[in-house]
Amino acid sequence: MRVGEVCLRVFDLDEARRHYGERIGLIETHKGDRDKLYYKASDEHDIYSLVLMQSDTPGIEYFAFKTYADSDLERFEKALTEYGLTVEHIPAGTYPRSGRRIQFRLPSGHLMQIYAQKDQIGNGMPTHNPGTIPDEGYIRGMRVIRLDHILLGSSEIMRNREIFTSIFEMSISEELISHEDETRIAIFLTGSNKPHDIAFVLQPDGNRFHHISFLLESVNDLFHAGDLIGKYNIAVDVSPNRHGVTRGATIYFFDPSGNRNEVFTGGYVHYPDTPQLTWDTSQIGRATFSHDNMPRQSFLDVLT
Amino acid sequence: MRVGEVCLRVFDLDEARRHYGERIGLIETHKGDRDKLYYKASDEHDIYSLVLMQSDTPGIEYFAFKTYADSDLERFEKALTEYGLTVEHIPAGTYPRSGRRIQFRLPSGHLMQIYAQKDQIGNGMPTHNPGTIPDEGYIRGMRVIRLDHILLGSSEIMRNREIFTSIFEMSISEELISHEDETRIAIFLTGSNKPHDIAFVLQPDGNRFHHISFLLESVNDLFHAGDLIGKYNIAVDVSPNRHGVTRGATIYFFDPSGNRNEVFTGGYVHYPDTPQLTWDTSQIGRATFSHDNMPRQSFLDVLT
Amino acid sequence: MRVGEVCLRVFDLDEARRHYGERIGLIETHKGDRDKLYYKASDEHDIYSLVLMQSDTPGIEYFAFKTYADSDLERFEKALTEYGLTVEHIPAGTYPRSGRRIQFRLPSGHLMQIYAQKDQIGNGMPTHNPGTIPDEGYIRGMRVIRLDHILLGSSEIMRNREIFTSIFEMSISEELISHEDETRIAIFLTGSNKPHDIAFVLQPDGNRFHHISFLLESVNDLFHAGDLIGKYNIAVDVSPNRHGVTRGATIYFFDPSGNRNEVFTGGYVHYPDTPQLTWDTSQIGRATFSHDNMPRQSFLDVLT
Amino acid sequence: MRVGEVCLRVFDLDEARRHYGERIGLIETHKGDRDKLYYKASDEHDIYSLVLMQSDTPGIEYFAFKTYADSDLERFEKALTEYGLTVEHIPAGTYPRSGRRIQFRLPSGHLMQIYAQKDQIGNGMPTHNPGTIPDEGYIRGMRVIRLDHILLGSSEIMRNREIFTSIFEMSISEELISHEDETRIAIFLTGSNKPHDIAFVLQPDGNRFHHISFLLESVNDLFHAGDLIGKYNIAVDVSPNRHGVTRGATIYFFDPSGNRNEVFTGGYVHYPDTPQLTWDTSQIGRATFSHDNMPRQSFLDVLT
Repeated sequence: MRVGEVCLRVFDLDEARRHYGERIGLIETHKGDRDKLYYKASDEHDIYSLVLMQSDTPGIEYFAFKTYADSDLERFEKALTEYGLTVEHIPAGTYPRSGRRIQFRLPSGHLMQIYAQKDQIGNGMPTHNPGTIPDEGYIRGMRVIRLDHILLGSSEIMRNREIFTSIFEMSISEELISHEDETRIAIFLTGSNKPHDIAFVLQPDGNRFHHISFLLESVNDLFHAGDLIGKYNIAVDVSPNRHGVTRGATIYFFDPSGNRNEVFTGGYVHYPDTPQLTWDTSQIGRATFSHDNMPRQSFLDVLT
Repeated sequence: MRVGEVCLRVFDLDEARRHYGERIGLIETHKGDRDKLYYKASDEHDIYSLVLMQSDTPGIEYFAFKTYADSDLERFEKALTEYGLTVEHIPAGTYPRSGRRIQFRLPSGHLMQIYAQKDQIGNGMPTHNPGTIPDEGYIRGMRVIRLDHILLGSSEIMRNREIFTSIFEMSISEELISHEDETRIAIFLTGSNKPHDIAFVLQPDGNRFHHISFLLESVNDLFHAGDLIGKYNIAVDVSPNRHGVTRGATIYFFDPSGNRNEVFTGGYVHYPDTPQLTWDTSQIGRATFSHDNMPRQSFLDVLT
Repeated sequence: MRVGEVCLRVFDLDEARRHYGERIGLIETHKGDRDKLYYKASDEHDIYSLVLMQSDTPGIEYFAFKTYADSDLERFEKALTEYGLTVEHIPAGTYPRSGRRIQFRLPSGHLMQIYAQKDQIGNGMPTHNPGTIPDEGYIRGMRVIRLDHILLGSSEIMRNREIFTSIFEMSISEELISHEDETRIAIFLTGSNKPHDIAFVLQPDGNRFHHISFLLESVNDLFHAGDLIGKYNIAVDVSPNRHGVTRGATIYFFDPSGNRNEVFTGGYVHYPDTPQLTWDTSQIGRATFSHDNMPRQSFLDVLT
Repeated sequence: MRVGEVCLRVFDLDEARRHYGERIGLIETHKGDRDKLYYKASDEHDIYSLVLMQSDTPGIEYFAFKTYADSDLERFEKALTEYGLTVEHIPAGTYPRSGRRIQFRLPSGHLMQIYAQKDQIGNGMPTHNPGTIPDEGYIRGMRVIRLDHILLGSSEIMRNREIFTSIFEMSISEELISHEDETRIAIFLTGSNKPHDIAFVLQPDGNRFHHISFLLESVNDLFHAGDLIGKYNIAVDVSPNRHGVTRGATIYFFDPSGNRNEVFTGGYVHYPDTPQLTWDTSQIGRATFSHDNMPRQSFLDVLT
């Protein structure tokens, strides 16, 4: 269905709370673990979608797809095992207020989980005669609506591509290929009407984290987010621009531990019959940042 | 996958061309039939999504869902036949540049088709290094991006509800129920991340057409559309407002034959696990037009 | 320079505080009078621009223009006296933290003041290295930026027209005239780059109040304001639309005492050499609400 | 009143026509001179505001302020002469469809003119019952509305500051000063409700041109402009960002001759009593580009 949960490692939970809570405007929805923070975005219903974990190294600890039916877990376990991956079982309750999960390490080195159940606490509006806007203060900071997608780096992305298309039945919306030898440099995958749910970029090392992206409602809100980023001296990677890939409007910045964040809005509506788009590296500037067609080295090289 | 094609009946093709082509900004993509016009919106890839047919009575002639795989047609035919509907076969080529279809009449009286293949002509940008914006003039008029959804009226909507949820596996995103006896007044169905792909509203008669909706990129474009609507004295049903249901921003207006059109932007992201929302008729003003909570009688009563 | 202060009469100060403070998002900046509330909008520097006064009848008590130099007061006094108006002196300090004023009753029956000095408390940002956005919470509610303009009603508007153009040297940006006898129905006056600072509309009675208008940054914020208006069941006069006159985007609603408020964004840039525009009453729908060209009787008839 | 006319030197008129006409969307309104192009923006009334002149060196040839009354010319001539500048007379008709002008060289080295009359051809809408939007195609390209302001560079900006404040009675809205010795680095001047009409930046040489700025309606249109800039490979100086100074949203790019252009939207409402803002060079990143607080060397150094 979607990337339902991402667990990032951060140096300091107080700094992380200020960044993800006060600045970005995520809502802290669960307390209890001394070394973890649990967040959801304003228009999400599940109790949490982002977990921050105290650590000495930044980066991604694991990510988890939510699937619709519990029975999907058996089906995926079977297919993944046949593909040659080792699948572990995580009992219900291991993660707070969440059902059982399966867990496995992708060829890219990333730890992935799948689960079907997590408690829902709503989006600040009732389900009967809900209205259109929650109480003031529920949407705050950068006014992010949802966790949108993640981009991960690895030296091995082609086997991930195979797993996500054949086992998870996702579509490739776009690919960036080398204009010299057609090597895939980046692969964008969607299982929804969004232009991407997850993407992989070729990197020298495995198990790297490029960014986590949060959805905004409009370019007005993107500029509002930029105003906050500037006000609080948040480290910026790329100021407002339009992606060629996905056609989304974007700002990239870093959390206090150096993990890259994105706020994102727009992008086209994708269906399984939407033609796949291909960019080659002769146009890497346009593919990444189409308002000036200028590649940013930091954007390509800096991962956690 | 989606509502891939809608066929509306109009009095006069020249007037319809001015309205849907010049004013709304749809692109006429196929010619050849003396009594029909074929249109696509700017960011659609299939050769046409709207067919206008010369007729003495306005309303909807048929609508068609596009499904991903041709093999789905057999599966749906079997399920629909078991449900008790009569399913016809339409050979490939009957509709221009389209594959075979199945056709049946819904309990609501509406003629529905399903097909898996239609030629694609793209969205004005190449699939290799596409860029982010087509040539000037490709997006024009009201700057509509896509056909978004349709709303149909009938005295029999509960069996449609059953067919769309059980056979087509769509989710009910929202329902409007009578606050007196809990009768369903309107049912909103989605098979995507949109808050609705199709909806049905209870009406005295069967086979009625309420509106066809086109997607816009922003509320700025909604106001731009309103400017054109006012400039060209297009008959307006409801000027800019926010729906309670779907949370989308909207303008309703009529084509020269009296068929209702909508331009629409926003609305939440829907997933199968998004809690279903229910509105009751004590809040019908807010459910329909939440900026003033005022029900519009014409909006409820006028169908073609 | 501008309409620097408006004093409205309201039934109940607690209700008014909830409406103008919490809902509209004005900032209460001065306390001390038991029967009055003092407000400024977020991007204004003067300590207050709106005064609410407890009363048994709604409407406007007075309005005041701020002029740049104290010496303007003598000049205006002389010209107004020559015109035949009686000008009173109000000593500095009569109004809190404000300099001396002159006061007179316009031919339309409205009480008007002029002053040159009022304390400034800033817009939530320093004047040295100010940044671009104040702390969260400073901009709240409907996110209004400034008091923009007022519209007043009277049976006598032509002599006001003469006073505002010849003595106050304002330009007529637009006029609405009767298409039958060319009587002026409404006169829009500007002394700035805004399409209007003050306007007068012909009404059976004198000294009437049509509306006070607050500036918003974008149509996104206009829709956000509409969401709050709907959420809190604020009485709406006209939901989102575009004015023909001024080309501004608008929502009209009422405070709990029945005084009409507007949130407004856009409108053209005006200069003294901008050609004056004229509308006639055959197009009164388009002149007032150009997205549907539909005149609203309540908009024309309901004043306080 | 405003910067009513700017004359830029360009290498090639055909390239310039493609850039300023097709891309930016200015309207070519006067023909007749072999070596010049005359343009206005869509919502301007005067027949032209931008003149492009074939030349071997880029840069600014002259700029002209429009004043309201012809009698202002004598007043300004007297004051400028007393200040020590040499004032020339340019007879009516020397510039096409324009009245007489006075001309003088500012201490900064820039040639400046003042005039009171130029023919008006309107903004694509009538002055009687104008409506709100011109015919399709009138607003095109980047959808610029007006010439907004210019920024000029010189080694001598303090005497310009004196002339513009004392003789032309403009306000200083903001200044950028050295945090070491308080030297003025940049001075922003306004005679309107805009945060600046003209600005001067300290540079090693005199008579330099930094940029000409065109007004857009919204940040949506700013992103649309960015899409066109990227599509047509227009050389970009700074992709979308927010200025600290003026709080406007901006993109900087270059015409084919290397003259810098800006598209601009937003910025606060200025009045003569708005407190002057000061930035120091310790915050030059934030003052110029507040979404990342990063100074751009090219922005500071590259002038024509």
